[in-house]
Amino acid sequence: MRYSQLLIPTLREDPAEAEVASQRLMMRAGMIRKLAAGIYSTLPLGQRVIQKTKQIVREEMNRAGGQEVFLPFVQPAELWVESGRWEVYGKEMLRLKDRNDRQFCLGPTHEEVITDLVRNTVNSYRQLPINLYQIHIKFRDEIRPRFGIMRAREFIMKDAYSFDIDEKGAEESYRKMYEAYSRIFERLGLKFRAVEADTGPIGGNFSHEFMVLADTGEDIIVTCTGCEYAANTEKAEIARPAAVAPEPAAFKEILRVETPNMRTIEEVAGFLKVEPKDLIKTLVFSSSDGPVVALVRGDHDINEVKLRNYLKCDTLELAEEDVIEKITSAPRGFAGPLGMKNVRMIADFGLQAGVNMVTGGNERDVHVINVNFERDFTVQEFADIRSAAAGDICPRCGSPLATTRGIEVGHIFKLGTKYSKAMNCCYLDQQGRSQPMIMGCYGIGVGRTVAAAIEQSHDDNGIIFPKPIAPFLVIVVPVNCKDTVQMDIALKLYNGLLERGIEVLLDDRDERPGIKFKDADLIGIPLRVTVGKNAVEKQQIDIKERKGGDAQQVAIDEAVAAIEGRLNQPGV
Amino acid sequence: MRYSQLLIPTLREDPAEAEVASQRLMMRAGMIRKLAAGIYSTLPLGQRVIQKTKQIVREEMNRAGGQEVFLPFVQPAELWVESGRWEVYGKEMLRLKDRNDRQFCLGPTHEEVITDLVRNTVNSYRQLPINLYQIHIKFRDEIRPRFGIMRAREFIMKDAYSFDIDEKGAEESYRKMYEAYSRIFERLGLKFRAVEADTGPIGGNFSHEFMVLADTGEDIIVTCTGCEYAANTEKAEIARPAAVAPEPAAFKEILRVETPNMRTIEEVAGFLKVEPKDLIKTLVFSSSDGPVVALVRGDHDINEVKLRNYLKCDTLELAEEDVIEKITSAPRGFAGPLGMKNVRMIADFGLQAGVNMVTGGNERDVHVINVNFERDFTVQEFADIRSAAAGDICPRCGSPLATTRGIEVGHIFKLGTKYSKAMNCCYLDQQGRSQPMIMGCYGIGVGRTVAAAIEQSHDDNGIIFPKPIAPFLVIVVPVNCKDTVQMDIALKLYNGLLERGIEVLLDDRDERPGIKFKDADLIGIPLRVTVGKNAVEKQQIDIKERKGGDAQQVAIDEAVAAIEGRLNQPGV
Repeated sequence: MRYSQLLIPTLREDPAEAEVASQRLMMRAGMIRKLAAGIYSTLPLGQRVIQKTKQIVREEMNRAGGQEVFLPFVQPAELWVESGRWEVYGKEMLRLKDRNDRQFCLGPTHEEVITDLVRNTVNSYRQLPINLYQIHIKFRDEIRPRFGIMRAREFIMKDAYSFDIDEKGAEESYRKMYEAYSRIFERLGLKFRAVEADTGPIGGNFSHEFMVLADTGEDIIVTCTGCEYAANTEKAEIARPAAVAPEPAAFKEILRVETPNMRTIEEVAGFLKVEPKDLIKTLVFSSSDGPVVALVRGDHDINEVKLRNYLKCDTLELAEEDVIEKITSAPRGFAGPLGMKNVRMIADFGLQAGVNMVTGGNERDVHVINVNFERDFTVQEFADIRSAAAGDICPRCGSPLATTRGIEVGHIFKLGTKYSKAMNCCYLDQQGRSQPMIMGCYGIGVGRTVAAAIEQSHDDNGIIFPKPIAPFLVIVVPVNCKDTVQMDIALKLYNGLLERGIEVLLDDRDERPGIKFKDADLIGIPLRVTVGKNAVEKQQIDIKERKGGDAQQVAIDEAVAAIEGRLNQPGV
Repeated sequence: MRYSQLLIPTLREDPAEAEVASQRLMMRAGMIRKLAAGIYSTLPLGQRVIQKTKQIVREEMNRAGGQEVFLPFVQPAELWVESGRWEVYGKEMLRLKDRNDRQFCLGPTHEEVITDLVRNTVNSYRQLPINLYQIHIKFRDEIRPRFGIMRAREFIMKDAYSFDIDEKGAEESYRKMYEAYSRIFERLGLKFRAVEADTGPIGGNFSHEFMVLADTGEDIIVTCTGCEYAANTEKAEIARPAAVAPEPAAFKEILRVETPNMRTIEEVAGFLKVEPKDLIKTLVFSSSDGPVVALVRGDHDINEVKLRNYLKCDTLELAEEDVIEKITSAPRGFAGPLGMKNVRMIADFGLQAGVNMVTGGNERDVHVINVNFERDFTVQEFADIRSAAAGDICPRCGSPLATTRGIEVGHIFKLGTKYSKAMNCCYLDQQGRSQPMIMGCYGIGVGRTVAAAIEQSHDDNGIIFPKPIAPFLVIVVPVNCKDTVQMDIALKLYNGLLERGIEVLLDDRDERPGIKFKDADLIGIPLRVTVGKNAVEKQQIDIKERKGGDAQQVAIDEAVAAIEGRLNQPGV
């Protein structure tokens, strides 16, 4: 296509509202424009990228046996009442009434609709398994939409739902989706990891997040340096350390010390001239089963998801001031395990080897030093309740764990019978008995994937698109469009590439070369072909990769073949 | 694909709610299911047809220079307030508030959003013309959604918008879309007509509807038997008849006669033993400019759109009883032109040649016979205010007009500056002056087109899909799946067709042949290949076209080539 005929409204300046690189660059490259908070229009260049991404997703879903459907976006409340989510789902679900005053919502997800469809159309074990998917918009009325299309309110999602007759079938369906997702992100040209994810209150260990690796990612991924283990921080386990018997010979004399206004780990450690790892952090929680005290080492982070899963409680949150005072008889910042009674206490495994530790004194401005297990207090329950960090030990192979940052672009989840039981989505088995179907659900944020690709691959000059989703593979830039010889050479090259089926953009704008080069870099086309003076004088054009490296001079006659060769090289 | 692995929930019985053939057949063929009034899920078979339709639309839009975009479905009220449509648009626009109590609507159309996008990204004549399109859902909260996806509330539409610097450019953009639409419906394999349509209050003669011809269509299309003229009934003109001078010699004596309780044309004509064409129908309207009386021949239909366009009034509707009584001094059913004063009166050209006519007597239960122009009353204004009917004369060539039924699937419209002026969507011309852009808008109902294709092409047994949008081109039916020889032959054929890139469905279900044949007919696959006893005993398979004709016996070895040959024949 010709640049002059495409709407690519690039911006010279960074938009003030842009908080992350992908948002800034998609706006600057003229790919998206904001219409309202969290609601974006996709412009032609962005749409080309989105369409390519959708096509790869579609092909791999079909290859994995998925059947494409298209489900309503405006959904009747009745189904959500039936599943029990109408009341439970928060304000992210936008509710509305039609002209007849009937309640509807804008689909934030489609479990209810698909379960209704399947219960009405499938009734025999012979029709199962099936996997139905769609690529469509969703609406989630986020309280704080941000980061452009990374966390928009209206966004494009591929969502798939599998229905099986038994657990084994459901696991097979899950495995197929795991493989399909791996192929999808592979084909999109992204560096990614599939990580184990927390399954929340449903339980089971069948949930993986697909994370695009990027330094700017919001999520922290824990990976093993020795094996394939990878998990998100909520989920990542830490190998249980060997039990250490306390050595009373090393115990020093326990002492209460004044620590005026010293509340945080850093303040106390600095004041007492010890390391944060020598402190016991004491956290009071309110859970649906009553107050709970959790102990972790001063340099470790409590992991509330792990703690909640360990406790198997419905809700868990840090306690309010009044609960803390009731339990510790002191304001926040001075809690400690000594002398605590009538409250359940769980300590992290990381504390087991601690000797002569520091804790709060359960009294304003007082801490206790040289605290030791057994001698000074006992803990009934040790568990893995802290977040894994770099250097922790892999639960599978014992190698050190590392951390890296990523962006969640896909999530696969074994749902079990949550929806099929609530909505009576059953099949008749071989014996004619009615059984609930076993479900799975599988999502990919399509726009989010494009944004993540940009987070992963950009530089100061703009986007560096992976080939599979680049809006064009080649941009041909005549340095001076008024020079008819240059323009003729550029046009010939452009037509030659088109004939070979190569997606090429001809920058036929009458603009200064600096602007053209800047725009070509900004919109991230993998190969730039420059037709300038050398083309006229030496019959040579320049080929340059967007990702870097020197320009290559090629004879005009060999240019099409050379470009095609460069595009076929891996890594271009 | 294998039938057993596809969700095709065919129905034996007609769904009670189905009002038209396409709705009935799409539900029976397992293509769609209703979720709520006017809200449908598209199932795998339907989705294949929709995707093929979308792809043809997309290719032709791109070929015509359209650039694909993707615009928000949830739209902020501010833009509609700015265009002036927030208050004017009726209840079809579903309004809602987000969690922050901000007003939004579900996009019933996208003029406001696209105009906002273009005013913010285009500012120079050098960036024009452009044509932006999307394929996306719309929501119109119809008071009476019906006919399945033919008139749904949530539906898929291709909408395009063009922006030009002047009228000439806008006409060229319009022409391109006219041609693109013609190619689209041609490629979809549909019999259609582009007809002139009324432009409503905006005026101008740039509006065409694309009508798929079908006996079951809601719309009546007027076409000339002698030339290319075609228009919808609202718009279709009738050649003005030659003026006829009244011949007083033939005038009979005017008489008032009693017509007790005779109000309708049929009642009065029957009672007086005359033809309906001998009556003058007198209709009283209330318009934004006051009451108006319209006269048409008893056997003709008033055309309110033509009348409104002639009067150039903003609103026009049949008058209420009190207005009629005030003007005619009689109840509804006895109005006549005699003695009427102080009201504007327009007579249709079709009355000009009338002699000794019958009219209401402006008195209960009284009509007047032998009424003649000039002698008994005069009319200042004659105009073309009736609907064209078969046999009327073409305004272009003088041949008789014919009527046919159709379904509107596309509409192209020259908008002019309505939105660009209201929303200040301007460009700088070569002299640096700010000018409003000239817009056009162009829609295709994607689901509606599929439904119309089915209305046009089906029989008692089911759908007869045109090849370009058939979900599969061939269905291979082994008569008895338990016969391993039959099944082997069927599989070989299936694989042979797949290798040639032919979309084929293998009915591998263990069902009775009658059910398989019925389903194959119902879902409308163009070619059915039967593998039965003959395949085992004579090495022959049967090829049969869905649209009819005898089965053809073909040797197994030649089957793939024979099928490919049949598919390449025009008209299959």
